[in-house]
Amino acid sequence: MVTSLKRFLVGTPKRTEEAIHERLTKKTALAVFSSDALSSTAYASEEILLVLAVAAAYGQSDVYYYVVPISILIAVVLGIVATSYRQTIHAYPSGGGAYIVAKENLGTYPGLIAAAALLVDYILTVSVSLSAGVAAITSAAQGTRFSGLDNHKVALCLILIFFIAVANLRGVRESGALFAGPTYAFLVCFLLMIAYGLIYYFLHPGTVAPINDAHLKLAEGYHVQALTWFLLLGAFSNGCVALTGTEAISNGIPAFKPPEARNAATTLTAMAILLAIMFIGTSALAYLYHVHPHDNETVISQFARIIFSGPFRWFYYMIQATTALILVLAANTSFADFPRLASLLARDRFLPRQFASRGDRLVFSNGIIILAAFSGILVAAFGGDTSRLIPLYAVGVFLSFTLSQTGMVRHWLREGQLLRTKRLAGRNRESGLKSGESFLAQIIAEGERLDDIHVSVTPEAIAGRNPIDVAELRKGASHWKRSIVINGVGAIATSIVLVVLILTKFIHGAWIVIVLIPILVAMFRSVYRHYQEVARQLTMEGIEKLRPIRHEVIVPISGIHRGVIRALEYAKSIAPDHVTAVYIDLDEETTKKLREKWNQWGAGVELVVLASPYRSLVRPLTRYIERIRRQHDNDMLTVVLPEFVTARWWHQLLHNQSSLLLKGALLFRKGVIVTSVPYHLEK
Amino acid sequence: MVTSLKRFLVGTPKRTEEAIHERLTKKTALAVFSSDALSSTAYASEEILLVLAVAAAYGQSDVYYYVVPISILIAVVLGIVATSYRQTIHAYPSGGGAYIVAKENLGTYPGLIAAAALLVDYILTVSVSLSAGVAAITSAAQGTRFSGLDNHKVALCLILIFFIAVANLRGVRESGALFAGPTYAFLVCFLLMIAYGLIYYFLHPGTVAPINDAHLKLAEGYHVQALTWFLLLGAFSNGCVALTGTEAISNGIPAFKPPEARNAATTLTAMAILLAIMFIGTSALAYLYHVHPHDNETVISQFARIIFSGPFRWFYYMIQATTALILVLAANTSFADFPRLASLLARDRFLPRQFASRGDRLVFSNGIIILAAFSGILVAAFGGDTSRLIPLYAVGVFLSFTLSQTGMVRHWLREGQLLRTKRLAGRNRESGLKSGESFLAQIIAEGERLDDIHVSVTPEAIAGRNPIDVAELRKGASHWKRSIVINGVGAIATSIVLVVLILTKFIHGAWIVIVLIPILVAMFRSVYRHYQEVARQLTMEGIEKLRPIRHEVIVPISGIHRGVIRALEYAKSIAPDHVTAVYIDLDEETTKKLREKWNQWGAGVELVVLASPYRSLVRPLTRYIERIRRQHDNDMLTVVLPEFVTARWWHQLLHNQSSLLLKGALLFRKGVIVTSVPYHLEK
Repeated sequence: MVTSLKRFLVGTPKRTEEAIHERLTKKTALAVFSSDALSSTAYASEEILLVLAVAAAYGQSDVYYYVVPISILIAVVLGIVATSYRQTIHAYPSGGGAYIVAKENLGTYPGLIAAAALLVDYILTVSVSLSAGVAAITSAAQGTRFSGLDNHKVALCLILIFFIAVANLRGVRESGALFAGPTYAFLVCFLLMIAYGLIYYFLHPGTVAPINDAHLKLAEGYHVQALTWFLLLGAFSNGCVALTGTEAISNGIPAFKPPEARNAATTLTAMAILLAIMFIGTSALAYLYHVHPHDNETVISQFARIIFSGPFRWFYYMIQATTALILVLAANTSFADFPRLASLLARDRFLPRQFASRGDRLVFSNGIIILAAFSGILVAAFGGDTSRLIPLYAVGVFLSFTLSQTGMVRHWLREGQLLRTKRLAGRNRESGLKSGESFLAQIIAEGERLDDIHVSVTPEAIAGRNPIDVAELRKGASHWKRSIVINGVGAIATSIVLVVLILTKFIHGAWIVIVLIPILVAMFRSVYRHYQEVARQLTMEGIEKLRPIRHEVIVPISGIHRGVIRALEYAKSIAPDHVTAVYIDLDEETTKKLREKWNQWGAGVELVVLASPYRSLVRPLTRYIERIRRQHDNDMLTVVLPEFVTARWWHQLLHNQSSLLLKGALLFRKGVIVTSVPYHLEK
Repeated sequence: MVTSLKRFLVGTPKRTEEAIHERLTKKTALAVFSSDALSSTAYASEEILLVLAVAAAYGQSDVYYYVVPISILIAVVLGIVATSYRQTIHAYPSGGGAYIVAKENLGTYPGLIAAAALLVDYILTVSVSLSAGVAAITSAAQGTRFSGLDNHKVALCLILIFFIAVANLRGVRESGALFAGPTYAFLVCFLLMIAYGLIYYFLHPGTVAPINDAHLKLAEGYHVQALTWFLLLGAFSNGCVALTGTEAISNGIPAFKPPEARNAATTLTAMAILLAIMFIGTSALAYLYHVHPHDNETVISQFARIIFSGPFRWFYYMIQATTALILVLAANTSFADFPRLASLLARDRFLPRQFASRGDRLVFSNGIIILAAFSGILVAAFGGDTSRLIPLYAVGVFLSFTLSQTGMVRHWLREGQLLRTKRLAGRNRESGLKSGESFLAQIIAEGERLDDIHVSVTPEAIAGRNPIDVAELRKGASHWKRSIVINGVGAIATSIVLVVLILTKFIHGAWIVIVLIPILVAMFRSVYRHYQEVARQLTMEGIEKLRPIRHEVIVPISGIHRGVIRALEYAKSIAPDHVTAVYIDLDEETTKKLREKWNQWGAGVELVVLASPYRSLVRPLTRYIERIRRQHDNDMLTVVLPEFVTARWWHQLLHNQSSLLLKGALLFRKGVIVTSVPYHLEK
């Protein structure tokens, strides 16, 4: 029954050889990986306005203007980050997530910090995106007879999480095909809305949203106050959620069709440009139409209602529908990335190995299930309210950006040093002084001196197949210098934003993430240590060959019946002359009867009767076992338990409790093996 | 850790010989067994008023008067039931619960119906009493700064259930000692309140409760309507909850000190008189002071506030406190009776046998735990609201009353028939015509004709030690006739009430119980059938002696390490020449390496490599096992699994998942035994 439910939801298993075909085209990849970043336009402008509303409520109603310059500033940061990540994609074509880049270039701990930040962010992406998606739906329902939907936000989010998880358990190709349509529909609708919204405004200047300050919503945790620089920084921090998801592509390069790196980089650029246009456009429209953040309607819904009125009202619903859909896709991005990162961590032994094994549909099922569970908990805990989740969100994103960019700077520094060495070798070779072999030795020595664990161009490849081309080396040299500048600017920009985020958002929830990340890192470390320790303990060193084992067998019995007979037969077969039956005396009369029967059926097996003044079955038996272990000092003691296998599951409740207790008590005893001999009941 | 928590809550274990000392004096028994019946005065009058309020809300404010005659009528029913039960106590001194009486006299099914009704009622007693107890507390909190307690009713109930369950797990004597004080405090306070209330009213005639009809509470499920006969019957039905618990004593006779029957009967009479006085008194006060049922204050609390004002206000709090306490004790009654009835059912094999075994404190621990769980669920489901639970409550009680009384009528009919036979024999003997032997034969023949399964005076006893005394027989004859009348009246009265209850309360919740009881009976029956079937299957008939078993052993391995070596050693020790190692090929390279290693370590054990195109570990293995089973057709196949025992519990999560899956898959296979060979990891 459980199996067939699984088959219905997830589909039939796939063979291992099918794995290679599960690749995405650029177009599909944009849908799968960019939806996270693009969808943040659905809430980023609103999150800026929420903070500005704090000053507006104080009386400074002109502060909403700042949404435009803040959005432009954030778009600039986006440009820097995207350019920076293009470098990463080319340097790490096999998937250059922040975890790998930080780990290889900065060391294990920075890598683990990046990984922890990313895992937390993936969970938050699901929660934030679905909360915002549900808000788009409930906004559209305002004023209709479905306006009560507002009260079921959490339930709606949980239903969506379930469906997305199931879609992903079915496999990534199907997800891509399923989701490409909606992404492009969103893009087209949103761009049309911005264009038409601007035109409409200049045709009807002065059209503004009706003021409804009774429901004015302020950013969670702020008191009404006059505008300060700190408040502006807070608004900027909130807007930075627009950048979440920018790194998704660089984590997922192996899912692209070949040439993976080039396709990924192109997709990233396209995404960044689209995102910048849509984000600034949304902020501009919100400002032009004087839209204020609102308790039960999103900012976009408010101005879209104004723009698309009368005969165009259907297009308003298109906007809301595609917005909701893209946000669902954004959640889906995490369902592609979280399991992938978890599998990388598991392969490196920082997470339990179950995360590294593919399920029968070739996806990392355990990661998908864990992600669904945690994001569901988060949604429930924060009542499905996007703006309450935002302060937790951006810290992890920018932490991983910073680590990743810093790692790239280090990467290019090493690459540069290697190139210098090669150039030196090339010069020597030109002058005919050094042989290929000694060149190779020099490269390797140089690599060791640099403590280089990742040489992207292997010495063998250089020395063997590619004769050294000095012109190309020169080009390489100018390339790494340019790259250092790009990634350096990226690292500095993102670290400044990170500091701003921590300062402005710490008390509003960022502290949760800041506390959680070290805890996760500590967990990674102890999982790793455990696996190391196990490998050490299991080593075959010192073992010559199999040793013979002697063993005693005891059979605890509750009476004489066919089940017991079966157990005794089995016991005699595994240790013919070392079997003892044990009976716990709970009632004199019954014990006497048993002894009599034993003479008839016991077949020469010794019967030991143990007293139990406290009516416990387990305690006398475990004591007896201890005694036997001490007396015989054998290698092994096998406890053979007669056990019923019932025909119906609930019949099991009517039997075997003593066996269960006994197994529990003996589980952790050294040198004791518990074997159940089943007796199959027929009905 | 778990063990020491248990010891702390429950205390140290008691030896079996201590069992007999756990008996109750009359005084203590009144506290333990009567608190249920007595405590119903805390809500019975209010439940009548709730129905009358339906007509009051319609405008007929004088209908509240009916509370007094209805209460008197219910007290009359109480008198009939109590008199009836005194007969039962004497006839069944070893504990004459409705289950036993109905089963012995009416047959198995009526007995099981009574048992099901009683089990449901015990659960309801806990839920209703604690809800009412909490209402007494929150009523007292009205108007103080704790008035918010009202919103935490369910939580308060659950906390109380927990503490009562723990007290009972500690043992019955300690419960009695713990609870005697509060019961008598309640009795004294309540009787004083009634007396003083009546005096106060006649000293200050016309004192009435302030009218607060904004919060007027109506019985759940009724629409506002004029007074009808049906409504009066509904009010009567609600009031009948006053009788719940009357049967408690007759279920618990063995817990009394000897002479058990006489002590129990005396206690029952005392209880019935006290209950009648308190119930009628409460209804009278509610009527005199014009108290209307109220959303957040109980009826008793309302008039007690009026009576005990000014310097006597402390006594009001005494009333509320002792009321709350007695209701807690009422819940405790069920914690004595539910486990006892469950153990009787388990001994007769209608419930799983775990209910029949005493825990290490000599109480039936499993029954206590189950009762706590179900009553907790019920409280949570009904929001801790007494009046919503009431319609479910009385049906089961009166069903068991009716079955029990009808059973008693049948009992006396048989007894009478037996006495007639004996008298006949006595006459024969007087005339010297029949010998003792032929008399005995006649008695037995008569017994068989009656299909008598319970002859309370055994023929041996009559024929052997007691020479027949004709005068005594005559006395017996008049006794059984009188008894038939008493129990007959009881049966008729309770069955009429039962019909009224079903008619008036069916749609308000009684249907739940009416549906549940047949389900429970079906469950009892199938548990019984299962145990019968098992006994049949396990019979030793046809077994001559132990047969020798041959067996194959296979060891599924995931690689070569010390854990695997240990498993191989064990496998060779139990079947030296029949061991095969099995490896699942998930990756060509790894498999090749394993084969090479195997030549070094395999020690002559055959290695079988199985392909797994779908990356499943379990499926190829189970198929292989099936194949082996068919090939060898051996008696047994043992699967030896290497398994890690980790030093910390959470480390277990990092290992053994495949073993677990495999065990699950092989659990129900015939002729397959799974043995885990533990490898103990050190840290």
